[in-house]
Parts: sequence; C-alpha cells; structure tokens
Amino acid sequence: MRYPEAISFAPGRPYDGFFDVEEVIDRIRLYLEHLAGRGRSPEQVANLIYQYGPTAGLIRDLIADSLRVDEGIDVPPEAVVVTVGSQEAMLLTLRALVRGPDDVVLAVSPCYVGITGAARLLDVTLVPVEEGENGIDGVHLEAAIAAQRACGRAVRAVYLVPDHSNPSGATVPLRTRHELIAVAERQDVLLLEDSPYRLVSPGPVIATLKSLDRVRRVIHLGSFSKTLFPGARVGYVVADQLVVDDEGRTSLLADELTKIKSMVTVNTSSLSQAAVGGALLASAGRISALNVESAAHYAGALRETLDRLDEELPPSHRARLGVRWNEPAGGFFLVVQVPFAADNAALTRSAEDFGVIWTPMSYFYPEAGGERALRLSISYLSADEIKQGVHRLAQFIESEAGRTARGAGHHPGRS
Amino acid sequence: MRYPEAISFAPGRPYDGFFDVEEVIDRIRLYLEHLAGRGRSPEQVANLIYQYGPTAGLIRDLIADSLRVDEGIDVPPEAVVVTVGSQEAMLLTLRALVRGPDDVVLAVSPCYVGITGAARLLDVTLVPVEEGENGIDGVHLEAAIAAQRACGRAVRAVYLVPDHSNPSGATVPLRTRHELIAVAERQDVLLLEDSPYRLVSPGPVIATLKSLDRVRRVIHLGSFSKTLFPGARVGYVVADQLVVDDEGRTSLLADELTKIKSMVTVNTSSLSQAAVGGALLASAGRISALNVESAAHYAGALRETLDRLDEELPPSHRARLGVRWNEPAGGFFLVVQVPFAADNAALTRSAEDFGVIWTPMSYFYPEAGGERALRLSISYLSADEIKQGVHRLAQFIESEAGRTARGAGHHPGRS
Repeated sequence: MRYPEAISFAPGRPYDGFFDVEEVIDRIRLYLEHLAGRGRSPEQVANLIYQYGPTAGLIRDLIADSLRVDEGIDVPPEAVVVTVGSQEAMLLTLRALVRGPDDVVLAVSPCYVGITGAARLLDVTLVPVEEGENGIDGVHLEAAIAAQRACGRAVRAVYLVPDHSNPSGATVPLRTRHELIAVAERQDVLLLEDSPYRLVSPGPVIATLKSLDRVRRVIHLGSFSKTLFPGARVGYVVADQLVVDDEGRTSLLADELTKIKSMVTVNTSSLSQAAVGGALLASAGRISALNVESAAHYAGALRETLDRLDEELPPSHRARLGVRWNEPAGGFFLVVQVPFAADNAALTRSAEDFGVIWTPMSYFYPEAGGERALRLSISYLSADEIKQGVHRLAQFIESEAGRTARGAGHHPGRS
Repeated sequence: MRYPEAISFAPGRPYDGFFDVEEVIDRIRLYLEHLAGRGRSPEQVANLIYQYGPTAGLIRDLIADSLRVDEGIDVPPEAVVVTVGSQEAMLLTLRALVRGPDDVVLAVSPCYVGITGAARLLDVTLVPVEEGENGIDGVHLEAAIAAQRACGRAVRAVYLVPDHSNPSGATVPLRTRHELIAVAERQDVLLLEDSPYRLVSPGPVIATLKSLDRVRRVIHLGSFSKTLFPGARVGYVVADQLVVDDEGRTSLLADELTKIKSMVTVNTSSLSQAAVGGALLASAGRISALNVESAAHYAGALRETLDRLDEELPPSHRARLGVRWNEPAGGFFLVVQVPFAADNAALTRSAEDFGVIWTPMSYFYPEAGGERALRLSISYLSADEIKQGVHRLAQFIESEAGRTARGAGHHPGRS
C-alpha cells in the first residue's frame, strides 16, 4: 500500500476476474429453491436464513456430497462442520486437540501464518518440522514425534498443506501420503490436512490424505475461499474421529468442534452458506468443474513467472549469483533462494528502488529459518505485470548480490 | 426438540415473522449501489464483495454513523471492528485484555452464556458479581474489584448487559451508569457493555454507557442479530481506548482487536456486511426505526406473559406458594422464583407431564446460584402459546410446590 507503483508478488489473494456478484445472488436463490423443493414452506425457508440455525452448518450435507464426488472423501454429513473460513476450523481443531501444557502440535515448516496465529491465540505450542523439497516424509515425521516425546511432550497433531504448500509450493507424493498416515496411526497422532489450492491447480491431483485414510487419522480442513470467493468466509472441517466426552459418551470429534464453535462465532453466515450451497447445487458438487478457468489462469501465471525468471536469470548466470528457485506444479507460490538476507530492510530497498514487492520467507518460520529466501505469489498478477515484475526482481537481486559482495569486501570478518 | 408438543419458553431466538429474504437481497443491492455511487467501477465493487477485504470490516463507517444517530455514541469508524456476531467480539476483547494468570474479568451474574463460553475457550478467569434488582451499582462493583485485588488479582474488565439483561431482564438506571463509569475510571478497569435488546424494546431507552463515557472506559459490544437477523452473523465492537503496542506505538484498542480477529475468522462475510450495510443505508442509520414493529411485538408478548402469570397465580395465591417474578420493562426475558429446585429433573417433569419448557436459572451462574429460579423467554411465542404455556407452567409450579411439601413431610430431616 505504501508503494502504489510497485508490482507486488506478496498477497496470496485469489484472482477475481471471473467473479460476478449477480451470479452469487442467483446461487443464493438456487439454494432457497432447493430448500423449498424439499418440502419446506416459504416461512420455513425464510426461517432457515433468518435464524441462528444449527451451529455445525446448514450445508454440511451438500459439502459431504461434494467431497465424495470431487475429492474421494466419503464421510457422513455429521462429520462435517461448516466454519467461518478454514481459519476458524484451525482454531477449533487446535482447541479441541490440545488439552494441557505438554501437548504440542507439529507444523511442517515453513508454514502458513494462519496456523501460527491460531496457535498463538490459544497459547498452543507449535513445533516446526522442516520440510524437504517434497514436503515431509514418514521418517522425518516419526523422528520429530520421537524427539518431542523424549522431551516429555505429547504430539497431538501434525499440520501440513500437502498440495502446493503455502509458502513453499511443495507437494507431498502419493507414496509419502500413505507413509504419513501409517506413522500417524503408529504414533497415535492426527494429521491436519489443509489443502486450499488443489482445485484451482492444473493437471491431475494426488489423492487427499483424507481419501486415503482408513484409520480416521486425518482431519481435513477445507475452504471455499479460492474455489468460490474469500469474502464468503466459508470453510469446513471434516472430523470423523470418535471421541469420548466428559460424560463418557462416544461422539464424533466434529461434535466437539461444534461445541467450541458455539463459543467463537455461534454460526456461519446463512447468506454465505446459501451462496456456497447454491454453487454446490449448480455444479452437482463438482467445485473442480467451476474452477477449470481459474485453474488455467493460475497455471498460466505460474508458467509465465517461471519462464520469465529463466529468461532474466538464465542457468549459468543464476548459478554464479547463487540464486535458485523451485518449480511447483500448481498453487499460488514459489520460493526464490537468494545470496543475501531477504529481510524487511531488503524488502524496503526492493520496493523503493526497484518497484517490486515480495514476502520474506522468514515470516513463515515459527522459529528461525528462511533468512535468504523470498516467496513469490503469482495469483493476482497479469502476464504483463509478471513480465515487468520479474524483470525488476532480477535487477533487485543483482543489486543486492553486488551489495552483499561489496559489503563482504569491506568487512571481510563479517562475511 | 425431544418434546415437540411442549410450549417452550426456553430459546432466546428473535421472532422471524417480519423477515423477508427478498428484502435482504434488495439491501445487498442497495449497498452495492452505494459503493458504485461513491465512484467505484463495477470491477471495484465486485472486488469488495469477492476479496477478503479489510479485517476490521467494510461497513465500519456506516456503523459509526448509525451509532451517532441511534445510540448517541460518537466514535470514528476506526474505533469500530465488525465481527462475526457479538460472540466473536467478546472473544477478541477477552483475548486482548487478559494478559496473564492473575488478570480476571468480572461478570455481572447471572450472566449470558456467551461470555462464559468465550472465557472458558480462552482459559480466562471469569469472576461472578451478583446483581441486584437493577443490575449492579457502583458500591458493589468497587467492593468486588477490591476483593479481587486483595487476592492478588487484577480486574481488567467488567462484563454487563445494562438493558433488559439476559437472563434476568434487569436494567441499570441512568444514575448508576454514571457511577459505574466513575468506578471504572477510579479503579482502572474497563466496562464491557453488551446491549442487544435495546432497540427491540418498547419505550424510551436509557443512554448507553458508551454514550456517557467521557474517559474511554467503556467498550461497547453490538449485534444486529436481534435488530436485523441472527443468520447474518454481524456484530461489532467499539473500542476507542488508546493502547501502546509491543513496538511502543500508540494505537486504538480496535487495532489490537483487529489483529486478533485475523487469527480467528480473518474477516466477516462480505455478503452479510452488504446486507447489514444496505439496512443501515435504507434507514439512514436508524436501526431503531426498522424495529418499531418488532419492539411492539416483544412488548406485547412480555405484557401478555406478565398478565397471564398474574391471572394464573394471583398475588395471594403466589405468596402462599412462595412464587414471584420480576417485571422487566423490555427485552426477551423474565425470571420466576419458585419454592423448589428448578433443575434438569424438574425441567424433565415439566416437559413430560405438563408440556412446558423453560430454562433453569442455574445455567447462567458461572459458580453456584439460581437453583430455585427459572428463566422465561417471550421472544418466540404467539399470544395463544403464551396463554396456554403460562397455564401449563402454573400447573407445573403448583405440582412441584406440592411435591416439595410432601417430600418435606416424608423426609423431615431433608427439608
């Protein structure tokens, strides 16, 4: 905001070029007709929109249907809780799972700031587990759990974004997904699968952890922010784990989350649920089908960014500078490794002197890490902006690399 | 739900008889036109509905305008944070104010379960302060604060519903409101004023604590759940207190609450904000004017309930039974004192044998209290239901009173 002329690779905002407010109103009407078509009187339909309604949500049946056709996740509606975005889903889940000061949650890091924030709000200890090029694997996960146990801590859950992670763009391969579930079962922990970029990414998708889960070890966090629109603030959590409550009754974890939700937001907006419900009805649950165009848009922007980086910083040149980047198969983000501290001071120079903005990767590490890396978000830029932005970024990187080299020359003891 | 034939005085649900979904859609359109009329392009308008948007809300300016004309509260839009109902506002406020294990919040009790839930979620210690017939006064408040200080605890805030409290129906008189603000200033605490029933109650309203506050000691929690519709899930908090953040910068408490909101729900539904914004535009900020009809409805239901109680249990008769009730000037609730334990077992007998449901007052006491009292909610019943319901309630009360008397006869040692 302070540099209106700068091109920003910072915000992870989805692209709004395909959005139409009238379509949203049509979908609200479609949902109302659906309610009426199921034998409800006009008064009853109005009542469902007017009142607080069920805390777990109005559209959990439609979401459960959609998960079956679109994600291979087969759970009853009762296992779904509709939330105010996946942010609330994270908060509810952490609150339900962490019961005492020795309980911790692992987060595959670098990680999304939403989980860090939810943990901070609840004073939950979040322990980072560094990911590799393909996210985390079973061996590293098991070692991390054992290390916590050795410190007297119990790992309750492991947070990960298995598809096109925010911020790194990494994707966990299918075989590793099976491994992670096996580790979760063996070590008695839950996996919190957060996967908002799947259905807006190109090409075949790898099976969700939840669809592979035969042992109820995966909690799936969902969001309509990227597939429909973020302003709706509708997400959900799938929690079909069996739990025993304070009175000794067995119920679903989803019921526990619902009780907690009643203390946070009471309900999710009925208008927003109607808009999402209408979209689910309009697509027969295939949110993927509604996103063919946007997935192609993001794929094009990602390809454009990678091509321009390659053009501006060809292999031999970037090798000399000490610059490299990953090539995610989808999602909104990629990471550029640079030969200098990509901190706030560098970001200010980048914005002021070169007119290009990015996000320091260090923001995404709960503890230390990512000091010499930056995140590029490609979701909100046109091809022209990407072209110009990558050009500016390359100039900035060259300047910083030179600056660091000169700085090192002046202060050899501090290199 | 288990007694479909029973008449229920339990839910505090607002009455939906005046609600029209088409009107909501019209109001969304009105808000969109308002945005367009202020020089925004169709793309910019769509973008405001589509995107995450500002965490503190899209309609804080309209809410600030409304507070000025309807509530005598004069604050800048920057002091307002739009929330997912006042439930989220409570959560944010408790989280911001309570910093350590010795910080506590007082709650004028019996109190609304929403504040109890928010405190439980955050592990915040909520200390009940028993109210009198007219809520709490300055002397009792100051004594309660001193008592906490004597135990080494710091009272950070005092939660109260000054108008037609839920559950008791009590209203704090004007002079006491001035006293409470003076105590808050003297004792360096904040008052959390939650007042959802003001604008749906009949007759002249007493000035809000916030409108009397010249020393920024009142945080005002607002809700559109009763004045528009609960399904919208739109509330707000007015927090114009100056605070110094971790980096030593002075800002408004509203900014702190906004940061916390980014970890809870990120934003409030843009559709819901548009619906509320349109209603504020349609009424030139006078939400009170939109509620003339519903205020009359609730006033009629309350009057009907009191009249029927008086008819079914006339003065001499109720004196003999040991039954009495209060006569609130507005709101949704009144309290009946009974000569027996109004517990879950009694409630089951009331529902099964007499077909009438109410809420045990003990539910609303964070610690002990209210064992021989029940709450009646009048908001959701027709005159016929009230007539029949009060008749059944009187029969139940007579039966229980007799049962208790007989029980005492059989077991004199346990009376």
